[in-house]
Amino acid sequence: MAGNTAVTVIGLGEMGAALAGAFLKAGHSTTVWNRTASKADPLVEQGAERAATAAEAAQASPVVIVCLLDYDSVHQVLDPLGDALKGRTVYNLTNGTPEQARETAKWAADLGYDYIDGGIMAVPQIVGTDHAYVLYSGSNTESFERDKPVLSAMGDARFAGTDAGLASLLDLSLLAGMYGMLGGAMQAIAMVRSEGVNAQQFSTELLIPYVTSIAGVVANLARQIDNDEYHVGISAALSMQQVGFRNIVEASRSQGVSSELLDPIQSLMDRRVADGFGNDDFSGVIELLKQNKK
Amino acid sequence: MAGNTAVTVIGLGEMGAALAGAFLKAGHSTTVWNRTASKADPLVEQGAERAATAAEAAQASPVVIVCLLDYDSVHQVLDPLGDALKGRTVYNLTNGTPEQARETAKWAADLGYDYIDGGIMAVPQIVGTDHAYVLYSGSNTESFERDKPVLSAMGDARFAGTDAGLASLLDLSLLAGMYGMLGGAMQAIAMVRSEGVNAQQFSTELLIPYVTSIAGVVANLARQIDNDEYHVGISAALSMQQVGFRNIVEASRSQGVSSELLDPIQSLMDRRVADGFGNDDFSGVIELLKQNKK
Repeated sequence: MAGNTAVTVIGLGEMGAALAGAFLKAGHSTTVWNRTASKADPLVEQGAERAATAAEAAQASPVVIVCLLDYDSVHQVLDPLGDALKGRTVYNLTNGTPEQARETAKWAADLGYDYIDGGIMAVPQIVGTDHAYVLYSGSNTESFERDKPVLSAMGDARFAGTDAGLASLLDLSLLAGMYGMLGGAMQAIAMVRSEGVNAQQFSTELLIPYVTSIAGVVANLARQIDNDEYHVGISAALSMQQVGFRNIVEASRSQGVSSELLDPIQSLMDRRVADGFGNDDFSGVIELLKQNKK
Repeated sequence: MAGNTAVTVIGLGEMGAALAGAFLKAGHSTTVWNRTASKADPLVEQGAERAATAAEAAQASPVVIVCLLDYDSVHQVLDPLGDALKGRTVYNLTNGTPEQARETAKWAADLGYDYIDGGIMAVPQIVGTDHAYVLYSGSNTESFERDKPVLSAMGDARFAGTDAGLASLLDLSLLAGMYGMLGGAMQAIAMVRSEGVNAQQFSTELLIPYVTSIAGVVANLARQIDNDEYHVGISAALSMQQVGFRNIVEASRSQGVSSELLDPIQSLMDRRVADGFGNDDFSGVIELLKQNKK
Protein backbone atom coordinates (compact mmCIF):
# COMPACT_ATOMS: atom_id res chain seq x y z
CA MET A 1 0.00 0.00 0.00
CA ALA A 2 1.25 3.41 -1.02
CA GLY A 3 -1.72 5.01 0.67
CA ASN A 4 0.37 6.62 3.40
CA THR A 5 2.55 8.81 1.18
CA ALA A 6 1.64 12.47 1.50
CA VAL A 7 0.89 14.27 -1.76
CA THR A 8 0.41 17.94 -2.57
CA VAL A 9 -1.62 19.20 -5.50
CA ILE A 10 -1.02 22.80 -6.59
CA GLY A 11 -3.68 24.11 -8.97
CA LEU A 12 -7.29 23.03 -8.66
CA GLY A 13 -8.81 23.70 -12.04
CA GLU A 14 -11.02 20.95 -13.41
CA MET A 15 -8.01 18.69 -14.01
CA GLY A 16 -6.12 19.52 -10.80
CA ALA A 17 -9.26 18.87 -8.75
CA ALA A 18 -9.68 15.50 -10.48
CA LEU A 19 -6.06 14.61 -9.66
CA ALA A 20 -6.48 15.57 -5.98
CA GLY A 21 -9.73 13.58 -5.87
CA ALA A 22 -7.92 10.52 -7.23
CA PHE A 23 -5.22 10.77 -4.50
CA LEU A 24 -7.89 11.09 -1.80
CA LYS A 25 -9.74 8.09 -3.20
CA ALA A 26 -6.50 6.07 -3.12
CA GLY A 27 -6.07 6.94 0.57
CA HIS A 28 -3.20 9.41 0.34
CA SER A 29 -2.89 12.26 2.78
CA THR A 30 -3.50 15.09 0.29
CA THR A 31 -2.70 18.78 0.69
CA VAL A 32 -4.19 21.19 -1.83
CA TRP A 33 -3.63 24.81 -2.80
CA ASN A 34 -5.21 27.08 -5.36
CA ARG A 35 -4.86 30.82 -5.93
CA THR A 36 -8.64 31.16 -5.58
CA ALA A 37 -8.95 29.31 -2.27
CA SER A 38 -12.64 28.41 -2.59
CA LYS A 39 -11.77 25.94 -5.36
CA ALA A 40 -10.42 23.73 -2.57
CA ASP A 41 -13.73 23.55 -0.66
CA PRO A 42 -15.17 20.36 -2.25
CA LEU A 43 -11.82 18.59 -1.77
CA VAL A 44 -11.51 19.70 1.88
CA GLU A 45 -14.98 18.21 2.41
CA GLN A 46 -13.59 14.93 1.04
CA GLY A 47 -10.69 15.05 3.52
CA ALA A 48 -8.00 17.15 1.85
CA GLU A 49 -5.80 19.54 3.85
CA ARG A 50 -6.03 23.15 2.71
CA ALA A 51 -2.66 24.96 2.59
CA ALA A 52 -2.73 28.71 3.23
CA THR A 53 0.12 29.41 0.83
CA ALA A 54 1.86 27.66 -2.06
CA ALA A 55 5.00 27.43 0.11
CA GLU A 56 3.05 25.68 2.87
CA ALA A 57 1.60 23.31 0.26
CA ALA A 58 5.06 22.53 -1.11
CA GLN A 59 6.44 21.78 2.33
CA ALA A 60 3.56 19.48 3.29
CA SER A 61 4.55 16.55 1.04
CA PRO A 62 7.57 14.97 -0.67
CA VAL A 63 5.49 14.55 -3.85
CA VAL A 64 4.28 17.85 -5.31
CA ILE A 65 1.90 17.70 -8.27
CA VAL A 66 1.56 20.95 -10.24
CA CYS A 67 -1.33 21.37 -12.64
CA LEU A 68 -1.87 25.00 -13.63
CA LEU A 69 -3.28 26.84 -16.64
CA ASP A 70 0.06 27.33 -18.39
CA TYR A 71 3.80 27.66 -17.78
CA ASP A 72 3.52 31.38 -17.00
CA SER A 73 1.34 30.39 -14.05
CA VAL A 74 3.83 27.67 -13.11
CA HIS A 75 6.63 30.21 -12.87
CA GLN A 76 4.46 32.75 -11.04
CA VAL A 77 3.63 30.16 -8.39
CA LEU A 78 6.88 28.18 -8.12
CA ASP A 79 9.56 30.86 -8.65
CA PRO A 80 8.96 32.65 -5.32
CA LEU A 81 9.01 29.39 -3.30
CA GLY A 82 12.79 29.23 -2.89
CA ASP A 83 13.93 26.56 -0.45
CA ALA A 84 10.39 25.28 0.14
CA LEU A 85 10.89 22.93 -2.80
CA LYS A 86 14.25 21.53 -1.61
CA GLY A 87 13.94 17.80 -1.06
CA ARG A 88 10.66 17.63 -2.89
CA THR A 89 10.00 16.20 -6.32
CA VAL A 90 7.82 18.38 -8.51
CA TYR A 91 5.69 16.54 -11.06
CA ASN A 92 4.56 19.27 -13.41
CA LEU A 93 1.50 18.12 -15.37
CA THR A 94 0.66 21.56 -16.75
CA ASN A 95 -0.02 21.66 -20.50
CA GLY A 96 2.86 23.17 -22.41
CA THR A 97 5.44 22.67 -25.12
CA PRO A 98 8.56 20.46 -24.95
CA GLU A 99 10.66 23.63 -24.91
CA GLN A 100 8.83 24.96 -21.85
CA ALA A 101 9.28 21.63 -20.08
CA ARG A 102 13.02 21.59 -20.83
CA GLU A 103 13.46 25.17 -19.60
CA THR A 104 11.57 24.45 -16.39
CA ALA A 105 13.60 21.28 -15.78
CA LYS A 106 16.80 23.26 -16.17
CA TRP A 107 15.54 25.94 -13.81
CA ALA A 108 14.61 23.29 -11.22
CA ALA A 109 18.05 21.70 -11.51
CA ASP A 110 19.65 25.10 -10.93
CA LEU A 111 17.57 25.56 -7.79
CA GLY A 112 18.46 22.05 -6.64
CA TYR A 113 15.17 20.20 -6.51
CA ASP A 114 13.89 17.19 -8.44
CA TYR A 115 11.66 17.75 -11.42
CA ILE A 116 9.70 15.47 -13.73
CA ASP A 117 7.44 16.77 -16.47
CA GLY A 118 4.28 14.96 -17.41
CA GLY A 119 1.34 14.85 -19.76
CA ILE A 120 -2.05 13.52 -18.67
CA MET A 121 -3.61 11.36 -21.37
CA ALA A 122 -7.15 11.53 -20.01
CA VAL A 123 -10.05 13.92 -19.58
CA PRO A 124 -10.78 14.84 -15.93
CA GLN A 125 -13.78 12.48 -15.84
CA ILE A 126 -11.61 9.36 -16.30
CA VAL A 127 -8.61 10.40 -14.16
CA GLY A 128 -7.99 7.66 -11.61
CA THR A 129 -9.65 4.95 -13.72
CA ASP A 130 -8.05 2.12 -15.68
CA HIS A 131 -8.50 4.16 -18.88
CA ALA A 132 -6.23 7.00 -17.77
CA TYR A 133 -2.48 7.16 -18.11
CA VAL A 134 0.15 9.82 -17.58
CA LEU A 135 3.39 10.14 -19.54
CA TYR A 136 6.45 11.31 -17.59
CA SER A 137 9.94 12.39 -18.60
CA GLY A 138 12.96 13.95 -16.96
CA SER A 139 16.37 13.13 -15.61
CA ASN A 140 15.34 12.40 -11.99
CA THR A 141 14.52 8.81 -12.77
CA GLU A 142 15.16 7.57 -9.19
CA SER A 143 12.51 9.91 -7.85
CA PHE A 144 10.07 8.68 -10.48
CA GLU A 145 10.73 5.02 -9.67
CA ARG A 146 10.26 5.72 -5.94
CA ASP A 147 7.02 7.69 -6.47
CA LYS A 148 5.53 5.53 -9.20
CA PRO A 149 3.13 3.71 -6.82
CA VAL A 150 1.83 7.08 -5.61
CA LEU A 151 1.54 8.55 -9.09
CA SER A 152 -0.41 5.51 -10.21
CA ALA A 153 -3.42 6.82 -8.29
CA MET A 154 -3.95 9.32 -11.16
CA GLY A 155 -3.57 6.71 -13.90
CA ASP A 156 -1.01 4.28 -15.27
CA ALA A 157 2.40 5.98 -14.82
CA ARG A 158 4.52 5.58 -17.97
CA PHE A 159 8.09 6.82 -18.21
CA ALA A 160 8.98 8.16 -21.68
CA GLY A 161 12.64 9.10 -21.27
CA THR A 162 15.15 11.34 -19.53
CA ASP A 163 14.61 14.37 -21.82
CA ALA A 164 12.13 16.47 -19.82
CA GLY A 165 10.48 17.62 -23.07
CA LEU A 166 9.61 14.13 -24.22
CA ALA A 167 6.37 13.62 -22.27
CA SER A 168 5.04 16.91 -23.62
CA LEU A 169 6.16 16.03 -27.15
CA LEU A 170 4.42 12.64 -27.01
CA ASP A 171 1.32 14.23 -25.48
CA LEU A 172 1.10 16.95 -28.15
CA SER A 173 1.85 14.43 -30.91
CA LEU A 174 -1.01 12.22 -29.75
CA LEU A 175 -3.28 15.26 -29.70
CA ALA A 176 -2.13 16.13 -33.24
CA GLY A 177 -3.15 12.62 -34.25
CA MET A 178 -6.49 13.03 -32.50
CA TYR A 179 -7.26 16.36 -34.17
CA GLY A 180 -6.37 14.90 -37.56
CA MET A 181 -8.90 12.15 -36.96
CA LEU A 182 -11.52 14.60 -35.64
CA GLY A 183 -10.93 16.97 -38.57
CA GLY A 184 -11.37 14.07 -40.98
CA ALA A 185 -14.56 13.11 -39.18
CA MET A 186 -15.92 16.68 -39.45
CA GLN A 187 -15.11 16.68 -43.17
CA ALA A 188 -16.83 13.32 -43.68
CA ILE A 189 -19.89 14.34 -41.68
CA ALA A 190 -20.21 17.71 -43.45
CA MET A 191 -20.16 15.86 -46.78
CA VAL A 192 -22.89 13.35 -45.90
CA ARG A 193 -25.00 16.01 -44.13
CA SER A 194 -25.12 17.91 -47.43
CA GLU A 195 -27.48 15.16 -48.64
CA GLY A 196 -29.38 14.99 -45.35
CA VAL A 197 -27.78 11.73 -44.17
CA ASN A 198 -28.11 11.25 -40.40
CA ALA A 199 -24.65 12.00 -38.99
CA GLN A 200 -24.96 9.82 -35.92
CA GLN A 201 -26.09 6.77 -37.87
CA PHE A 202 -23.35 7.38 -40.46
CA SER A 203 -20.75 7.67 -37.69
CA THR A 204 -21.86 4.64 -35.74
CA GLU A 205 -22.45 2.28 -38.66
CA LEU A 206 -19.80 3.39 -41.13
CA LEU A 207 -17.30 6.07 -40.13
CA ILE A 208 -16.11 4.91 -36.70
CA PRO A 209 -15.75 1.23 -37.70
CA TYR A 210 -13.95 2.29 -40.90
CA VAL A 211 -11.49 4.69 -39.30
CA THR A 212 -10.87 2.28 -36.42
CA SER A 213 -10.16 -0.62 -38.79
CA ILE A 214 -7.76 1.48 -40.91
CA ALA A 215 -5.93 2.84 -37.84
CA GLY A 216 -4.08 -0.47 -37.54
CA VAL A 217 -2.38 0.23 -40.88
CA VAL A 218 -0.54 3.14 -39.23
CA ALA A 219 1.81 0.64 -37.55
CA ASN A 220 2.93 -0.56 -40.99
CA LEU A 221 3.38 2.98 -42.29
CA ALA A 222 5.35 3.77 -39.13
CA ARG A 223 7.70 0.86 -39.79
CA GLN A 224 8.34 2.24 -43.28
CA ILE A 225 9.10 5.64 -41.74
CA ASP A 226 11.53 4.13 -39.22
CA ASN A 227 13.37 2.50 -42.11
CA ASP A 228 13.13 5.49 -44.54
CA GLU A 229 11.70 2.95 -46.98
CA TYR A 230 8.43 4.04 -48.55
CA HIS A 231 8.16 1.73 -51.56
CA VAL A 232 6.97 -1.42 -49.82
CA GLY A 233 3.44 -1.47 -51.25
CA ILE A 234 1.24 -1.61 -48.14
CA SER A 235 -1.35 0.71 -49.65
CA ALA A 236 -2.08 1.67 -53.26
CA ALA A 237 0.63 3.65 -55.05
CA LEU A 238 0.56 7.34 -54.12
CA SER A 239 -0.13 8.34 -57.76
CA MET A 240 -3.31 6.19 -57.63
CA GLN A 241 -4.30 7.67 -54.28
CA GLN A 242 -3.67 11.15 -55.69
CA VAL A 243 -6.25 10.53 -58.45
CA GLY A 244 -8.77 9.13 -55.99
CA PHE A 245 -8.20 12.03 -53.62
CA ARG A 246 -9.17 14.51 -56.36
CA ASN A 247 -12.61 12.84 -56.38
CA ILE A 248 -12.95 13.53 -52.64
CA VAL A 249 -12.03 17.20 -53.07
CA GLU A 250 -14.29 17.61 -56.10
CA ALA A 251 -17.24 15.85 -54.46
CA SER A 252 -16.82 17.95 -51.33
CA ARG A 253 -16.81 21.24 -53.25
CA SER A 254 -19.72 20.31 -55.50
CA GLN A 255 -21.73 19.41 -52.37
CA GLY A 256 -21.03 22.93 -51.08
CA VAL A 257 -18.58 21.77 -48.41
CA SER A 258 -15.27 23.58 -47.96
CA SER A 259 -12.20 21.56 -48.93
CA GLU A 260 -9.90 23.54 -46.63
CA LEU A 261 -9.09 20.49 -44.48
CA LEU A 262 -8.44 18.36 -47.57
CA ASP A 263 -6.30 20.81 -49.54
CA PRO A 264 -3.06 20.43 -47.53
CA ILE A 265 -3.26 16.62 -47.84
CA GLN A 266 -3.78 16.98 -51.58
CA SER A 267 -0.82 19.37 -51.68
CA LEU A 268 1.46 16.86 -49.90
CA MET A 269 0.45 14.11 -52.35
CA ASP A 270 0.90 16.36 -55.38
CA ARG A 271 4.36 17.52 -54.28
CA ARG A 272 5.49 14.00 -53.39
CA VAL A 273 4.36 12.64 -56.76
CA ALA A 274 5.99 15.62 -58.53
CA ASP A 275 9.21 14.76 -56.67
CA GLY A 276 9.14 11.37 -58.42
CA PHE A 277 7.74 9.17 -55.64
CA GLY A 278 4.37 8.30 -57.21
CA ASN A 279 5.01 4.58 -56.85
CA ASP A 280 5.74 4.84 -53.13
CA ASP A 281 3.25 4.44 -50.29
CA PHE A 282 1.37 7.33 -48.65
CA SER A 283 3.87 7.26 -45.78
CA GLY A 284 6.43 9.00 -48.00
CA VAL A 285 4.64 12.36 -47.57
CA ILE A 286 6.26 12.54 -44.12
CA GLU A 287 9.49 13.57 -45.85
CA LEU A 288 7.78 16.83 -46.85
CA LEU A 289 6.63 17.46 -43.28
CA LYS A 290 10.19 16.96 -42.08
CA GLN A 291 11.73 19.21 -44.72
CA ASN A 292 9.33 22.14 -44.65
CA LYS A 293 10.39 24.06 -41.58
CA LYS A 294 7.70 26.70 -41.61
CA MET B 1 -27.38 -21.12 -53.09
CA ALA B 2 -26.96 -18.20 -55.44
CA GLY B 3 -24.03 -19.94 -57.05
CA ASN B 4 -25.83 -20.57 -60.34
CA THR B 5 -26.45 -16.91 -61.29
CA ALA B 6 -24.24 -15.83 -64.15
CA VAL B 7 -22.15 -12.71 -63.54
CA THR B 8 -20.10 -10.56 -65.88
CA VAL B 9 -17.17 -8.46 -64.74
CA ILE B 10 -16.02 -5.68 -67.09
CA GLY B 11 -12.64 -4.24 -66.19
CA LEU B 12 -9.89 -6.44 -64.76
CA GLY B 13 -7.55 -4.07 -63.00
CA GLU B 14 -6.39 -5.13 -59.57
CA MET B 15 -9.85 -4.52 -58.08
CA GLY B 16 -11.87 -5.91 -60.98
CA ALA B 17 -9.77 -9.08 -60.99
CA ALA B 18 -10.39 -9.45 -57.23
CA LEU B 19 -14.15 -9.09 -57.78
CA ALA B 20 -14.15 -11.71 -60.55
CA GLY B 21 -12.08 -14.01 -58.35
CA ALA B 22 -14.64 -13.64 -55.55
CA PHE B 23 -17.50 -14.61 -57.89
CA LEU B 24 -15.59 -17.65 -59.12
CA LYS B 25 -14.84 -18.72 -55.56
CA ALA B 26 -18.54 -18.41 -54.71
CA GLY B 27 -19.37 -20.75 -57.60
CA HIS B 28 -20.88 -18.27 -60.03
CA SER B 29 -20.53 -18.75 -63.76
CA THR B 30 -18.35 -15.70 -64.43
CA THR B 31 -17.67 -13.97 -67.74
CA VAL B 32 -14.84 -11.45 -67.87
CA TRP B 33 -13.70 -8.77 -70.30
CA ASN B 34 -10.83 -6.33 -70.30
CA ARG B 35 -9.54 -4.02 -73.03
CA THR B 36 -6.11 -5.62 -72.66
CA ALA B 37 -7.29 -9.22 -73.03
CA SER B 38 -4.28 -10.85 -71.33
CA LYS B 39 -5.43 -9.49 -67.98
CA ALA B 40 -8.13 -12.17 -68.11
CA ASP B 41 -5.65 -15.08 -68.37
CA PRO B 42 -5.30 -15.90 -64.65
CA LEU B 43 -9.11 -15.76 -64.23
CA VAL B 44 -9.71 -18.01 -67.26
CA GLU B 45 -7.35 -20.49 -65.65
CA GLN B 46 -9.58 -20.40 -62.56
CA GLY B 47 -12.66 -21.15 -64.69
CA ALA B 48 -13.87 -17.77 -65.98
CA GLU B 49 -15.28 -17.37 -69.51
CA ARG B 50 -13.40 -14.85 -71.65
CA ALA B 51 -15.66 -12.59 -73.72
CA ALA B 52 -14.25 -11.39 -77.05
CA THR B 53 -16.00 -8.01 -76.84
CA ALA B 54 -17.62 -5.86 -74.17
CA ALA B 55 -20.98 -6.43 -75.89
CA GLU B 56 -20.52 -10.21 -75.69
CA ALA B 57 -19.63 -9.82 -72.01
CA ALA B 58 -22.71 -7.71 -71.32
CA GLN B 59 -24.98 -10.25 -73.02
CA ALA B 60 -23.53 -13.21 -71.14
CA SER B 61 -25.10 -12.42 -67.73
CA PRO B 62 -28.08 -10.61 -66.17
CA VAL B 63 -25.71 -9.10 -63.56
CA VAL B 64 -23.00 -6.88 -65.06
CA ILE B 65 -20.31 -5.56 -62.74
CA VAL B 66 -18.31 -2.63 -64.10
CA CYS B 67 -15.02 -1.69 -62.43
CA LEU B 68 -12.90 0.57 -64.62
CA LEU B 69 -10.26 3.25 -64.05
CA ASP B 70 -12.67 6.19 -64.12
CA TYR B 71 -16.01 7.35 -65.54
CA ASP B 72 -14.44 8.35 -68.86
CA SER B 73 -13.50 4.70 -69.31
CA VAL B 74 -17.02 3.68 -68.24
CA HIS B 75 -18.56 5.78 -71.01
CA GLN B 76 -15.98 4.66 -73.58
CA VAL B 77 -16.84 1.03 -72.88
CA LEU B 78 -20.60 1.18 -72.19
CA ASP B 79 -21.81 3.90 -74.57
CA PRO B 80 -21.25 1.87 -77.78
CA LEU B 81 -23.03 -1.23 -76.38
CA GLY B 82 -26.56 -0.11 -77.29
CA ASP B 83 -29.16 -2.85 -76.83
CA ALA B 84 -26.64 -5.30 -75.40
CA LEU B 85 -27.40 -3.90 -71.95
CA LYS B 86 -31.21 -4.15 -72.23
CA GLY B 87 -32.57 -6.47 -69.55
CA ARG B 88 -29.29 -6.41 -67.67
CA THR B 89 -28.55 -4.60 -64.40
CA VAL B 90 -25.27 -2.70 -64.42
CA TYR B 91 -23.55 -2.38 -61.03
CA ASN B 92 -20.96 0.28 -61.62
CA LEU B 93 -18.27 0.08 -58.92
CA THR B 94 -15.85 2.45 -60.66
CA ASN B 95 -14.41 5.18 -58.44
CA GLY B 96 -15.97 8.56 -59.15
CA THR B 97 -17.90 11.47 -57.75
CA PRO B 98 -21.60 11.56 -56.78
CA GLU B 99 -22.21 13.84 -59.78
CA GLN B 100 -20.70 11.32 -62.18
CA ALA B 101 -22.81 8.55 -60.65
CA ARG B 102 -26.00 10.60 -61.00
CA GLU B 103 -25.23 11.47 -64.64
CA THR B 104 -24.52 7.85 -65.49
CA ALA B 105 -27.71 6.70 -63.78
CA LYS B 106 -29.73 9.19 -65.82
CA TRP B 107 -28.03 8.08 -69.00
CA ALA B 108 -28.80 4.42 -68.19
CA ALA B 109 -32.45 5.26 -67.52
CA ASP B 110 -32.65 7.03 -70.89
CA LEU B 111 -31.27 3.94 -72.62
CA GLY B 112 -33.71 1.75 -70.70
CA TYR B 113 -31.53 -0.51 -68.59
CA ASP B 114 -31.19 -0.91 -64.84
CA TYR B 115 -28.32 0.82 -63.08
CA ILE B 116 -27.01 0.80 -59.53
CA ASP B 117 -23.89 2.69 -58.50
CA GLY B 118 -21.58 1.31 -55.85
CA GLY B 119 -18.48 1.96 -53.78
CA ILE B 120 -16.23 -0.87 -52.63
CA MET B 121 -15.13 -0.36 -49.02
CA ALA B 122 -12.20 -2.75 -49.18
CA VAL B 123 -8.76 -3.14 -50.67
CA PRO B 124 -8.51 -5.87 -53.34
CA GLN B 125 -6.80 -8.24 -50.88
CA ILE B 126 -9.88 -8.47 -48.62
CA VAL B 127 -12.60 -8.48 -51.31
CA GLY B 128 -14.80 -11.53 -50.76
CA THR B 129 -13.93 -11.79 -47.04
CA ASP B 130 -16.08 -10.94 -44.04
CA HIS B 131 -14.18 -7.63 -43.72
CA ALA B 132 -15.31 -6.28 -47.08
CA TYR B 133 -18.52 -4.45 -47.85
CA VAL B 134 -19.93 -2.58 -50.82
CA LEU B 135 -22.26 0.41 -50.64
CA TYR B 136 -24.94 0.62 -53.34
CA SER B 137 -27.40 3.31 -54.34
CA GLY B 138 -29.83 3.96 -57.17
CA SER B 139 -33.49 3.86 -58.06
CA ASN B 140 -33.63 0.25 -59.33
CA THR B 141 -34.17 -1.17 -55.87
CA GLU B 142 -35.98 -4.31 -57.08
CA SER B 143 -32.96 -5.31 -59.11
CA PHE B 144 -30.72 -4.78 -56.12
CA GLU B 145 -32.93 -6.88 -53.84
CA ARG B 146 -33.02 -9.67 -56.42
CA ASP B 147 -29.25 -9.62 -56.99
CA LYS B 148 -28.19 -9.07 -53.38
CA PRO B 149 -27.29 -12.76 -52.79
CA VAL B 150 -25.05 -12.67 -55.86
CA LEU B 151 -23.46 -9.34 -54.98
CA SER B 152 -22.69 -10.65 -51.50
CA ALA B 153 -19.88 -12.75 -52.99
CA MET B 154 -17.81 -9.53 -53.18
CA GLY B 155 -18.60 -8.41 -49.64
CA ASP B 156 -21.58 -7.44 -47.51
CA ALA B 157 -24.05 -5.67 -49.85
CA ARG B 158 -25.42 -2.51 -48.17
CA PHE B 159 -28.07 -0.33 -49.78
CA ALA B 160 -27.60 3.40 -49.04
CA GLY B 161 -30.57 4.98 -50.81
CA THR B 162 -32.27 5.64 -54.12
CA ASP B 163 -30.10 8.66 -55.08
CA ALA B 164 -27.47 7.07 -57.34
CA GLY B 165 -24.85 9.51 -56.04
CA LEU B 166 -25.21 8.44 -52.43
CA ALA B 167 -22.95 5.36 -52.46
CA SER B 168 -20.16 7.45 -53.98
CA LEU B 169 -20.75 10.27 -51.50
CA LEU B 170 -20.57 7.88 -48.53
CA ASP B 171 -17.51 6.18 -50.01
CA LEU B 172 -15.66 9.47 -50.56
CA SER B 173 -16.74 10.77 -47.14
CA LEU B 174 -15.32 7.68 -45.45
CA LEU B 175 -12.10 8.16 -47.40
CA ALA B 176 -12.02 11.81 -46.28
CA GLY B 177 -12.29 10.56 -42.71
CA MET B 178 -9.54 8.03 -43.32
CA TYR B 179 -7.17 10.59 -44.84
CA GLY B 180 -7.80 12.95 -41.93
CA MET B 181 -6.78 10.18 -39.54
CA LEU B 182 -3.76 9.23 -41.68
CA GLY B 183 -2.71 12.89 -41.98
CA GLY B 184 -2.95 13.27 -38.22
CA ALA B 185 -0.88 10.11 -37.80
CA MET B 186 1.82 11.43 -40.17
CA GLN B 187 1.90 14.70 -38.21
CA ALA B 188 2.20 12.86 -34.89
CA ILE B 189 4.90 10.53 -36.20
CA ALA B 190 6.90 13.37 -37.77
CA MET B 191 6.85 15.15 -34.41
CA VAL B 192 8.09 12.19 -32.34
CA ARG B 193 10.64 11.19 -35.00
CA SER B 194 12.22 14.64 -34.57
CA GLU B 195 13.47 13.35 -31.20
CA GLY B 196 14.39 9.93 -32.57
CA VAL B 197 11.43 8.12 -31.01
CA ASN B 198 10.72 4.79 -32.73
CA ALA B 199 7.63 5.42 -34.87
CA GLN B 200 6.38 1.84 -34.87
CA GLN B 201 6.58 1.52 -31.10
CA PHE B 202 4.94 4.94 -30.67
CA SER B 203 2.14 3.93 -33.05
CA THR B 204 1.50 0.53 -31.55
CA GLU B 205 1.72 1.49 -27.87
CA LEU B 206 0.32 5.03 -27.90
CA LEU B 207 -1.05 6.48 -31.12
CA ILE B 208 -3.30 3.70 -32.44
CA PRO B 209 -4.89 2.93 -29.04
CA TYR B 210 -5.39 6.66 -28.40
CA VAL B 211 -6.97 7.51 -31.76
CA THR B 212 -9.09 4.37 -31.65
CA SER B 213 -10.38 5.17 -28.16
CA ILE B 214 -11.21 8.77 -29.10
CA ALA B 215 -12.97 7.72 -32.33
CA GLY B 216 -16.01 6.68 -30.30
CA VAL B 217 -16.51 10.33 -29.29
CA VAL B 218 -17.34 11.11 -32.92
CA ALA B 219 -20.80 9.56 -32.43
CA ASN B 220 -21.54 12.16 -29.74
CA LEU B 221 -20.23 15.02 -31.88
CA ALA B 222 -22.37 13.69 -34.74
CA ARG B 223 -25.49 13.80 -32.57
CA GLN B 224 -24.75 17.45 -31.80
CA ILE B 225 -24.40 18.12 -35.53
CA ASP B 226 -27.71 16.37 -36.33
CA ASN B 227 -29.37 18.65 -33.77
CA ASP B 228 -27.46 21.85 -34.70
CA GLU B 229 -26.67 22.04 -30.98
CA TYR B 230 -23.00 22.47 -30.22
CA HIS B 231 -23.03 23.64 -26.60
CA VAL B 232 -23.60 20.32 -24.86
CA GLY B 233 -20.18 20.01 -23.25
CA ILE B 234 -18.94 16.62 -24.45
CA SER B 235 -15.37 17.86 -24.84
CA ALA B 236 -13.56 20.87 -23.37
CA ALA B 237 -14.80 24.29 -24.49
CA LEU B 238 -13.45 25.26 -27.91
CA SER B 239 -11.65 28.32 -26.47
CA MET B 240 -9.71 25.95 -24.15
CA GLN B 241 -8.95 23.60 -27.03
CA GLN B 242 -7.81 26.58 -29.10
CA VAL B 243 -5.19 27.45 -26.47
CA GLY B 244 -4.02 23.84 -26.25
CA PHE B 245 -3.88 23.54 -30.02
CA ARG B 246 -1.44 26.46 -30.18
CA ASN B 247 0.97 24.33 -28.11
CA ILE B 248 0.75 21.57 -30.74
CA VAL B 249 1.49 23.99 -33.57
CA GLU B 250 4.32 25.68 -31.67
CA ALA B 251 5.88 22.38 -30.60
CA SER B 252 5.68 21.06 -34.14
CA ARG B 253 7.38 24.11 -35.65
CA SER B 254 10.09 24.29 -32.99
CA GLN B 255 10.87 20.60 -33.64
CA GLY B 256 11.36 21.50 -37.32
CA VAL B 257 8.14 19.83 -38.45
CA SER B 258 5.82 21.65 -40.86
CA SER B 259 2.48 22.68 -39.37
CA GLU B 260 0.73 22.72 -42.76
CA LEU B 261 -1.65 19.91 -41.76
CA LEU B 262 -2.43 21.63 -38.43
CA ASP B 263 -2.94 25.18 -39.72
CA PRO B 264 -6.40 24.71 -41.25
CA ILE B 265 -7.69 23.10 -38.02
CA GLN B 266 -6.28 26.03 -36.04
CA SER B 267 -7.95 28.41 -38.50
CA LEU B 268 -11.36 26.73 -38.04
CA MET B 269 -11.04 26.97 -34.24
CA ASP B 270 -9.88 30.60 -34.37
CA ARG B 271 -12.74 31.66 -36.65
CA ARG B 272 -15.34 29.75 -34.65
CA VAL B 273 -14.15 31.33 -31.38
CA ALA B 274 -14.04 34.77 -33.07
CA ASP B 275 -17.66 34.18 -34.14
CA GLY B 276 -18.57 33.97 -30.45
CA PHE B 277 -18.80 30.18 -30.02
CA GLY B 278 -15.81 29.66 -27.71
CA ASN B 279 -17.95 27.90 -25.12
CA ASP B 280 -19.28 25.38 -27.63
CA ASP B 281 -17.83 21.96 -28.41
CA PHE B 282 -15.35 21.26 -31.22
CA SER B 283 -18.23 19.96 -33.36
CA GLY B 284 -19.34 23.57 -34.01
CA VAL B 285 -16.49 24.07 -36.51
CA ILE B 286 -18.59 22.09 -38.98
CA GLU B 287 -20.70 25.22 -39.50
CA LEU B 288 -17.66 26.84 -41.14
CA LEU B 289 -17.13 23.86 -43.44
CA LYS B 290 -20.77 24.11 -44.53
CA GLN B 291 -20.67 27.87 -45.09
CA ASN B 292 -17.39 28.21 -46.93
CA LYS B 293 -18.24 27.09 -50.44
CA LYS B 294 -14.80 27.28 -51.93
